[in-house]
Amino acid sequence: MNKQALLHIPESKYCYPVNQNTIILRLRMDKEDEIGCVEVVYGCKYKFHMEQKAAVMEEKYKDDLFKYYEIELKLEDVRLSYVFRIWKGQECRYFSEDGLTSAYDFKLSYYNSFQLPYINENDIHEVVEWMRGAVFYEIFIDRFYQGLIDKTTDYINLEWGRIPDPKSFTGGDIPGVTRKLDYLKDLGVNGIYLTPVFESISNHKYDTSNYKKIDRHFGTNEDLYKLVNEAHKRGIKIVLDAVFNHCSNLLPQFQDVLLKGKESKYFNWFMIDGDSIDTQNINYEVFGYSEYMPKFNTSNPEVQEFLLDIALFWIKEYDIDGWRLDVSDEVSHHFWRKLREAVKKVKPECVIIGENWHDANAFLQGDQYDSIMNYAFTKACLDYYAFQTVNAQGFAEKLNHLLMRNSGQVNAMMLNLLDSHDTDRFFTSVNKNKDRLLSAIAVMCMYMGAPCVYYGTELYLEGGYDPDNRRCFDWEESRWDIPFLEILKSLLSLKQKPALQKGDIRISYDENLCYIIRTFENSEIILILNQSGKTVRISQTGSILAQNKLLECNLSTDGFAVYEN
Amino acid sequence: MNKQALLHIPESKYCYPVNQNTIILRLRMDKEDEIGCVEVVYGCKYKFHMEQKAAVMEEKYKDDLFKYYEIELKLEDVRLSYVFRIWKGQECRYFSEDGLTSAYDFKLSYYNSFQLPYINENDIHEVVEWMRGAVFYEIFIDRFYQGLIDKTTDYINLEWGRIPDPKSFTGGDIPGVTRKLDYLKDLGVNGIYLTPVFESISNHKYDTSNYKKIDRHFGTNEDLYKLVNEAHKRGIKIVLDAVFNHCSNLLPQFQDVLLKGKESKYFNWFMIDGDSIDTQNINYEVFGYSEYMPKFNTSNPEVQEFLLDIALFWIKEYDIDGWRLDVSDEVSHHFWRKLREAVKKVKPECVIIGENWHDANAFLQGDQYDSIMNYAFTKACLDYYAFQTVNAQGFAEKLNHLLMRNSGQVNAMMLNLLDSHDTDRFFTSVNKNKDRLLSAIAVMCMYMGAPCVYYGTELYLEGGYDPDNRRCFDWEESRWDIPFLEILKSLLSLKQKPALQKGDIRISYDENLCYIIRTFENSEIILILNQSGKTVRISQTGSILAQNKLLECNLSTDGFAVYEN
Repeated sequence: MNKQALLHIPESKYCYPVNQNTIILRLRMDKEDEIGCVEVVYGCKYKFHMEQKAAVMEEKYKDDLFKYYEIELKLEDVRLSYVFRIWKGQECRYFSEDGLTSAYDFKLSYYNSFQLPYINENDIHEVVEWMRGAVFYEIFIDRFYQGLIDKTTDYINLEWGRIPDPKSFTGGDIPGVTRKLDYLKDLGVNGIYLTPVFESISNHKYDTSNYKKIDRHFGTNEDLYKLVNEAHKRGIKIVLDAVFNHCSNLLPQFQDVLLKGKESKYFNWFMIDGDSIDTQNINYEVFGYSEYMPKFNTSNPEVQEFLLDIALFWIKEYDIDGWRLDVSDEVSHHFWRKLREAVKKVKPECVIIGENWHDANAFLQGDQYDSIMNYAFTKACLDYYAFQTVNAQGFAEKLNHLLMRNSGQVNAMMLNLLDSHDTDRFFTSVNKNKDRLLSAIAVMCMYMGAPCVYYGTELYLEGGYDPDNRRCFDWEESRWDIPFLEILKSLLSLKQKPALQKGDIRISYDENLCYIIRTFENSEIILILNQSGKTVRISQTGSILAQNKLLECNLSTDGFAVYEN
Repeated sequence: MNKQALLHIPESKYCYPVNQNTIILRLRMDKEDEIGCVEVVYGCKYKFHMEQKAAVMEEKYKDDLFKYYEIELKLEDVRLSYVFRIWKGQECRYFSEDGLTSAYDFKLSYYNSFQLPYINENDIHEVVEWMRGAVFYEIFIDRFYQGLIDKTTDYINLEWGRIPDPKSFTGGDIPGVTRKLDYLKDLGVNGIYLTPVFESISNHKYDTSNYKKIDRHFGTNEDLYKLVNEAHKRGIKIVLDAVFNHCSNLLPQFQDVLLKGKESKYFNWFMIDGDSIDTQNINYEVFGYSEYMPKFNTSNPEVQEFLLDIALFWIKEYDIDGWRLDVSDEVSHHFWRKLREAVKKVKPECVIIGENWHDANAFLQGDQYDSIMNYAFTKACLDYYAFQTVNAQGFAEKLNHLLMRNSGQVNAMMLNLLDSHDTDRFFTSVNKNKDRLLSAIAVMCMYMGAPCVYYGTELYLEGGYDPDNRRCFDWEESRWDIPFLEILKSLLSLKQKPALQKGDIRISYDENLCYIIRTFENSEIILILNQSGKTVRISQTGSILAQNKLLECNLSTDGFAVYEN
């Protein structure tokens, strides 16, 4: 046995409650280890030296290096002690806080068993239930649709449909989104993530100068109110972009500091090296290297209060359904904990989604965000479909690996995406191969979490990196590829199946194909992906899915098949 | 290379800030891997695709399975991206969020490098500076010394010095502690941890009925005030026991529920299965199985407020220096976060020490406790000195392993103990072998963290499990072993050396001996332990410490030697 591969971390994604009397335990092992069976031996911590139960764990996930055993335990007494027992033939070994041993002395277990000492109600990471069936659509508003008829168009500097540059304004707005709600509903969308909407002089509006006012380019506060209202009528949720890491240099508080330097009461709202602001030498912290986006000092209680007030304002007054947190990885954990507590108190079903591109488990313990924009999923899809650096096996392993980064609750709320306003368009990355795009969308729908379609994907909109990834939506239906659109819609509609909302997930592979299988009660949905470069015959023989009857067809390369049992 | 052994977790004990521009990175590897050198390749995350620096990491710790590389990085720009580069001869491999690869594409690093995206001031776990030099002494008050002269002694039911049973009262009190402060100071103690002092009918007082009143057996609130005041005059800190997991059934709030059932406004302060309390069938959550110790519902905001008020009351009004949190592992993380924030706001140098017997890393991220009672250290010492299940190598490996459970800051604040009111006396566990006891005390002083001597250890007080571990202190000096006491004092005094307060630690072994070496600037202190069962000659040859001049002596079995360079 590869002892060094064994991993279990108490009170982590390897051991967490899902409700007041149910916990999940996971154990990681070398995937090459030939093991008979893995048991968890458990009991109430106050009796564990005398009384233990045992339950067999299931091997559920496999990545390039490891296999992961998992079990859900329903507990009568939640004061849990446990160790793992690993069998090989008639021999067994124990795995405890003291490591792997050939015997285990339960009498001394109070020193070295694993423990989940208690399940406290407010430590449980509750799933925002509507996220289980959510199908998101990200809208970069200036490029989606112009809905305001009598608006001032003085700021528009690019004709709709032309290729944008970083300073382009084309006129999309919030009423435009509202007017397209029926279109989106028909597409299968039930959640919209809007890039920033508050006052800002830029087209992207990530430089906010007034957090309580909808920017005039996009409409009015009343327009947002109407959007949320109309969306809710159609069962569509609205998630706004919370740019709390930084603001615009035009924010009055920053302007005050610019004017008064250290005398300003807002001086400690920012992080300034010196007694006054030097915009030439940028002696203050900013986002990236953008002098016009000063970074907030989110350790300052006044800043925290200012931002929390904003977060609650749009929930209480406009009834929004979630916040996507911009550059959330650079903001303090301390602040996110406060934000979560405040937000969930007002609206528990308000989802909180961080923009962390990397492993964000430190933010996803249930005390900060609910989930993140899953860019690691994006990267896995790029590796498989675009860069082609992994085959079916590699893709399956990566997808499994990512599931093991976080708890099941976080996985259920992940915002899975192929692209966004911050990446190349996926369609462009796969060399405009529509089959691959659809195949990847199928994966996004089948994976744990909520798929998020970037606006225009249904029109296979092209685009490289910013600003090219922000082209205008083409509303001329005669140019649409209806069969493509229909397939996309049928894929998105899959998310309403119970198996995709609450089902278990298994991801596996054979020589040519990758399989994603979701099961719930008696239903099962299977996705089969072929990126092998050749047509593959799927039949009952030779398939890992031999038990399923429907599997007989030719699957062309770049193709996929979905089966329901 | 054993790929499965490689471990690095972003924003964890493997990557954490120690101040606003300094971070520690750790990388775990199989200890058998033959590696040339390990580098961290790092840079500002916004430039990492273009600009990287590299620095060599140091192999610092080794346990039974792994070796741990560590580096302290001072950063100009704290928005950090990094990957590891592992060299073997002329070949290197990279370790990133994508695992171990033979090449690394820095252009795509925004998807898969490791990151510490920013260091926010209020996410830094600050060391309580006085803990670096702290030498604690735990007092079970009823058994230490009776200082009140004119007190009511009606409750005393056992003559001082007789073997106690669970219900014994012998008369020790707070003025008794105050009167012995000079004795303790002379011993080398500068921190006292008192078991509970608030109103309670038991001798141990872990069943509190009034959290704002010193129990009459122990004196008055005024007596505590005097104790803290006199202790502070002598540079001694006072840490009280916070029993916030549960209370006494005599607490008025519980009594109210007992009387009124669901009608009581305190009904949700406890966790009751039904509409009223059934003390016969214990239909409410309790500590252990003790019906007289109802468990608080620490998820209830009212309970949180009640307990926070108590925590602050004793800090603000009595100026105590720390809280030891009883049964802290069964209380919600959410509550401990609130407690930390409230306490540190009032008195940042107030230390918070949890009673978690197991790996408590989930509580030690800087947002909850500062440290814990280090019972895993206790167990390692028992394994080496009492059970003799490990030799010098095994002991060194265990001690190194425990250091890798937490950040350096937590390690610096650990409360290291050989025994307490909740364990057998260590002296009894080692079959009354004074040499072993002293050797273990030497380890406790040399290790990272604060040693905590259980009262009477200096008199090698005996005792098995509760109540036998709570015997009376013998103040008859004619019976004391003065040479033993002097060695113990000289060991405790070591903690005032800079090397033991701020020094690096290295723990190693050879065939017979275990070595603990602390270094700070030009000073070095070395502890050598011999539990090999034979006398060992320490000389310049054959020792891993060949570079040190002083090492030539015979070290008898159970002996230890301390050197200072």
